[in-house]
Amino acid sequence: MPDILRLYPPPAETVKEIYGELELPTESKNGDPSKPFVYINMVSSLDGKASIDGKSGGIGSSVDRETMRILRSKADAVMVGAGSLRAEKVSLTSEGRRSPEPLAVILSGSGKLPLEENLIGAEKDRTVVLLPESTSAEKRDYLSRYARILASKSSKPGHKYLAGAIRLLKQHFEVRRLLVEGGPSLNHSLISNGLADELFLTLSPKLIGGYPEEISTILQGSHLPQENVLTSILSIHLAEDELFLRYALSAPVSDK
Amino acid sequence: MPDILRLYPPPAETVKEIYGELELPTESKNGDPSKPFVYINMVSSLDGKASIDGKSGGIGSSVDRETMRILRSKADAVMVGAGSLRAEKVSLTSEGRRSPEPLAVILSGSGKLPLEENLIGAEKDRTVVLLPESTSAEKRDYLSRYARILASKSSKPGHKYLAGAIRLLKQHFEVRRLLVEGGPSLNHSLISNGLADELFLTLSPKLIGGYPEEISTILQGSHLPQENVLTSILSIHLAEDELFLRYALSAPVSDK
Repeated sequence: MPDILRLYPPPAETVKEIYGELELPTESKNGDPSKPFVYINMVSSLDGKASIDGKSGGIGSSVDRETMRILRSKADAVMVGAGSLRAEKVSLTSEGRRSPEPLAVILSGSGKLPLEENLIGAEKDRTVVLLPESTSAEKRDYLSRYARILASKSSKPGHKYLAGAIRLLKQHFEVRRLLVEGGPSLNHSLISNGLADELFLTLSPKLIGGYPEEISTILQGSHLPQENVLTSILSIHLAEDELFLRYALSAPVSDK
Repeated sequence: MPDILRLYPPPAETVKEIYGELELPTESKNGDPSKPFVYINMVSSLDGKASIDGKSGGIGSSVDRETMRILRSKADAVMVGAGSLRAEKVSLTSEGRRSPEPLAVILSGSGKLPLEENLIGAEKDRTVVLLPESTSAEKRDYLSRYARILASKSSKPGHKYLAGAIRLLKQHFEVRRLLVEGGPSLNHSLISNGLADELFLTLSPKLIGGYPEEISTILQGSHLPQENVLTSILSIHLAEDELFLRYALSAPVSDK
């Protein structure tokens, strides 16, 4: 392992691992006790690429992957959007750093999920699929072979559906700390609706290039009003030219 | 002005301005004495956006704009691609920090340049347009009312044209330090062809969002082979949650 330096807050200090000692809150800063504390972890290249050709693997280093597992070990559940699971094979475990492993949660609007093919290392009773209530019985039956099913009331995307879905996680599975690992549309829905408390961003020292149609950034959706999402930096770590940044996100000005 | 902290290299230290004391090399690290030292300065949001709807204004803070002027004051010439000039009004001056002001250089493949409308604060004899030799006499005549014209041999984009163009700047105008401020395609051409020595990146604490068709990142073009562009971090400054990062870029493995 390379040397890891915590640069901020100063003074700089060598640490054994990034976020190893981190104590995350168990309640959302927005003061809503029915909602878990939601933190997003993403990796991006220097030129802002979170994936190329739909795949995010290879952008972060081995230190980033270890840091990802540490952040998972602090979570009661790790959630990704359905698109991430359709794009590539995904494991959401801490690889034994937490016991039991955090719940693996997939948020899906359509119920089209290749759980059997692409979700790796997940036990059925530790896997949860969040679906709209309108999902057909046929799809539910198929998915219930591999996961526990939670149906949320509204089928429309947006604040009410998302807020309701993550409240169900707290209500049914006592999820107090929810880690989200993308994709860019799920991140955008959470942030634009004021449902995310913190953003952990690994800034890899790579330059990826790519054309708009083949890349993604960490956040995709409507243009966010700049006064609506305020971020403040909480810590900075550096390991072999790779930066590990932690930001607090403010609540949006208006609760849409 | 907010407090500015230099975090890396440690120990952390409060500084009056970012890069105020910076001494840049006068020769390219790649060891080619006919080429200026080329450094790129860009600002990006946390989510990797360098512009939205073609405009980059408003992503960086006032500290970023002051830092941009300081970096310009270290340059003999400041270059942008024609697309940047077509997208919005552009000033390339240091606002008096350097006397004479650095040359304003526009690299154009087509000669279609709204110099009169969009280039602000540039004197004719301190403005240079780099064109392919194939550009029509009519276009050259129009542009020569506002700028000095340099014609480069190849009309094809790529290593030879770009390398030839920036060599002309050294040869004709003694440009030893060339600052490039985008756009994303020009950055990509320089970096992918091993013509850029350093990247200065301001990471604004904003989240912009946006859909692929309306945003740009700092680098657009073909997917870069990861082993081809290596970056190492030279310094990190922090001012009010905004990060100012300086990276050295390696030469590419093969000189295409």
